[in-house]
Amino acid sequence: MSETKKRYFLPEEEIPRQWYNIQADMPNKPMPPLNPATRQPLKPEDLYPIFAEELCRQELNQTDRFIDIPDEVREMYKYYRSTPLVRATGLEKALGTPAHIYFKNESVSPMGSHKLNSAIPQAYYCKKEGVTNVTTETGAGQWGASLAYAARLFGLEAAVYQVKISYEQKPYRRSIMQTFGAQVTPSPSMSTRAGKDILTKDPNHQGSLGTAISEAIELATTTPGCKYTLGSVLSHVSLHQTVIGLEAEKQMAMAGEYPDMVIACFGGGSNFGGIAFPFMRHKFDGTAPKETRFIAAEPASCPKLTRGIFKYDFGDEAGYTPLLPMFTLGHNFRPANIHAGGLRYHGAGVIVSQLLKDGLMEAVDIQQLESFRAGTLFARSEGIIPAPESCHAIAATVREALRCKETGEEKVILFNLSGHGLIDMTAYDNYLAGNLMNYSLSDDEIASNLASSPIPGE
Amino acid sequence: MSETKKRYFLPEEEIPRQWYNIQADMPNKPMPPLNPATRQPLKPEDLYPIFAEELCRQELNQTDRFIDIPDEVREMYKYYRSTPLVRATGLEKALGTPAHIYFKNESVSPMGSHKLNSAIPQAYYCKKEGVTNVTTETGAGQWGASLAYAARLFGLEAAVYQVKISYEQKPYRRSIMQTFGAQVTPSPSMSTRAGKDILTKDPNHQGSLGTAISEAIELATTTPGCKYTLGSVLSHVSLHQTVIGLEAEKQMAMAGEYPDMVIACFGGGSNFGGIAFPFMRHKFDGTAPKETRFIAAEPASCPKLTRGIFKYDFGDEAGYTPLLPMFTLGHNFRPANIHAGGLRYHGAGVIVSQLLKDGLMEAVDIQQLESFRAGTLFARSEGIIPAPESCHAIAATVREALRCKETGEEKVILFNLSGHGLIDMTAYDNYLAGNLMNYSLSDDEIASNLASSPIPGE
Repeated sequence: MSETKKRYFLPEEEIPRQWYNIQADMPNKPMPPLNPATRQPLKPEDLYPIFAEELCRQELNQTDRFIDIPDEVREMYKYYRSTPLVRATGLEKALGTPAHIYFKNESVSPMGSHKLNSAIPQAYYCKKEGVTNVTTETGAGQWGASLAYAARLFGLEAAVYQVKISYEQKPYRRSIMQTFGAQVTPSPSMSTRAGKDILTKDPNHQGSLGTAISEAIELATTTPGCKYTLGSVLSHVSLHQTVIGLEAEKQMAMAGEYPDMVIACFGGGSNFGGIAFPFMRHKFDGTAPKETRFIAAEPASCPKLTRGIFKYDFGDEAGYTPLLPMFTLGHNFRPANIHAGGLRYHGAGVIVSQLLKDGLMEAVDIQQLESFRAGTLFARSEGIIPAPESCHAIAATVREALRCKETGEEKVILFNLSGHGLIDMTAYDNYLAGNLMNYSLSDDEIASNLASSPIPGE
Repeated sequence: MSETKKRYFLPEEEIPRQWYNIQADMPNKPMPPLNPATRQPLKPEDLYPIFAEELCRQELNQTDRFIDIPDEVREMYKYYRSTPLVRATGLEKALGTPAHIYFKNESVSPMGSHKLNSAIPQAYYCKKEGVTNVTTETGAGQWGASLAYAARLFGLEAAVYQVKISYEQKPYRRSIMQTFGAQVTPSPSMSTRAGKDILTKDPNHQGSLGTAISEAIELATTTPGCKYTLGSVLSHVSLHQTVIGLEAEKQMAMAGEYPDMVIACFGGGSNFGGIAFPFMRHKFDGTAPKETRFIAAEPASCPKLTRGIFKYDFGDEAGYTPLLPMFTLGHNFRPANIHAGGLRYHGAGVIVSQLLKDGLMEAVDIQQLESFRAGTLFARSEGIIPAPESCHAIAATVREALRCKETGEEKVILFNLSGHGLIDMTAYDNYLAGNLMNYSLSDDEIASNLASSPIPGE
């Protein structure tokens, strides 16, 4: 009853001034993105029609270990950063584990998730380069809301394609985007060629991130002054998210600890990379005090890391993106309608894919019911209702903490609470009412999904 | 584009160790609550059957200027306090005002509002005195969610009566309470005599805070081990909320400013008292550096401060509470179904009622459309979507800031952002779609409401 809650904040001057670029340190660099027609590796300028130019350079930068955070971006980070590092004593007690559990609470951002860490610099570079309109896709709406907010901060117009099933399941996120003045369209829509093609084949298509990406890219490349932005998957997004891990490292030092395990949920890889990469760099430069394990927790319904294959694939359904070397379930994969909309993506970012291939990290898959069971336990013991996505990281943490209970080990576990679930209460309602189910894929389904996602020329 | 965001936090040791009890300083003390049958003033022990005993003593304490915050409570405050004081430079710029606008951001609490500041000590005292179950009413659900959370922290069971219209308009808040393990019943319900009586007369009764209070009190007084708790109106609730103003005073000093105006929205008075009373104490002890104005912003649809009368009235519809000396619209008043559910209460707390009577503060009424217009402007300029209740404080702030624009005065305005509106997006949806309306009461309606709320023996 009189338990002390430990929270660690950084003084303002300790908020990072640089992002960490793991590409410079990787023993095997990610293979290059390819032009699908020519199979030639892409140079930054090949991506300029889609993204702000500085973001294209960051995407392919494999030499600079650290990249300066622009002053204007850092000023806006200060609005909610540093985010707290919290010792989860309530959860530890509820589990009866000797493990020390810490979480980095990214849910305190104004938009309730880590997504703002990349939305701000993406909007900043667009504005700086004279862009007037930005467009993007969103699943659960966390990214779309963050981009709508950042666009508003920099005076840009925003158009968001929201995955149709999320648009319907999560109307509050749509309202948030609209309150910030963004235009929101459920995807697939009839407003793009990509959307029309998909709806012609399947009028009841529920949408996917891959489809919404196609629509947003098409809008960007056909509209003067408009650039596309992405909330995960790409290397420059993970780069921006390293502000999480760089802060967490200093805060763990304030607590006098270093993690044995770093855990995050996994959709495209940005929140995982954000918290994991800064700790991984000590593995690369030989300064790691421990053999830290890095664990990505993905939904069993969308298991690209645990059951996908490593190959060149498109990042979107229509095939507008370059070919990326990734663990994938095939770009036409249609994930089940689980409530963790942000994790319903067919592929993993190129950095994480290479790291997993090289055995530098692990992945686990989590069923929907296990994720909500863990999330509800966390809510009742820590007083924060986690986003359905974050519930996967909590479930993986609970598994490890219970293993410590068996062995009696006082392991230090750090996980990223990527966002809160206050706008996802429909999901909790359904869970509490016993209306949710698990989803599993057979090996045949996975093989057939891959087979139905062909790459031209293969 | 490169504007600096000013936020002020207190170091942990500066988080208050005592609450400020304004009753000790008031030139005219509030008149005592009366036993409705005998018309005799109540002593603390008369209230013991309803509330935890320490809360009853706090309620009627007119002598101690400061009351110690128990260590266990202060530890839990630390989980989210100090809350930031923020200079609203975005809003200032959007309005083009020379005024300096500051807001105290209570929305960062885990439950998204200031309500937790009192839920924690109320649950704490209940637990300490051997109570096993707590019950309460809730309108918008901010208080109910906070009590459910605090009850969970202290291992108490919680039963919440939620005003029916809010139960239906705001299903997410119900889910939040349920996720924390609370039992939630829409009020009026058939589970109490009070509820049955009301539904017998009017099967379509939409509920009101007055009705829900009756039901919760009836449950508490008829259930062994169960106590009632209240989220506003009462003096001990405002006492707990003074942690807001005590922090804000130190934070304003960090910014080198002192407010010319302190503004808060007004339902029962706890968030207003919380931010205003600590500044008011300098008026009483002669140390105020300025002639600060204190402004309560109430909805035009429920205008007890601006159009009610001062008299002894019941705090609930069924007449279970003592008689309280308050500005009231009559305990049977049924407010319009505006979205600011937390402000739909017929009376004002006894302290505020006395202060208003004595001309020590002011009140303004705000129409629903003006409140959402101001709230949307705030969201777009400051990046935080305010609760519909808080929008009233913002609207009053906007009025004053625009007055400064006319006169060129650099007034310092401080308002309390009592909560965020992320769970109230239905309201914003309706506002953005043009579906909301204003509500006004004629003088005749007000008089007839008062006439239909008789007090026995009058």
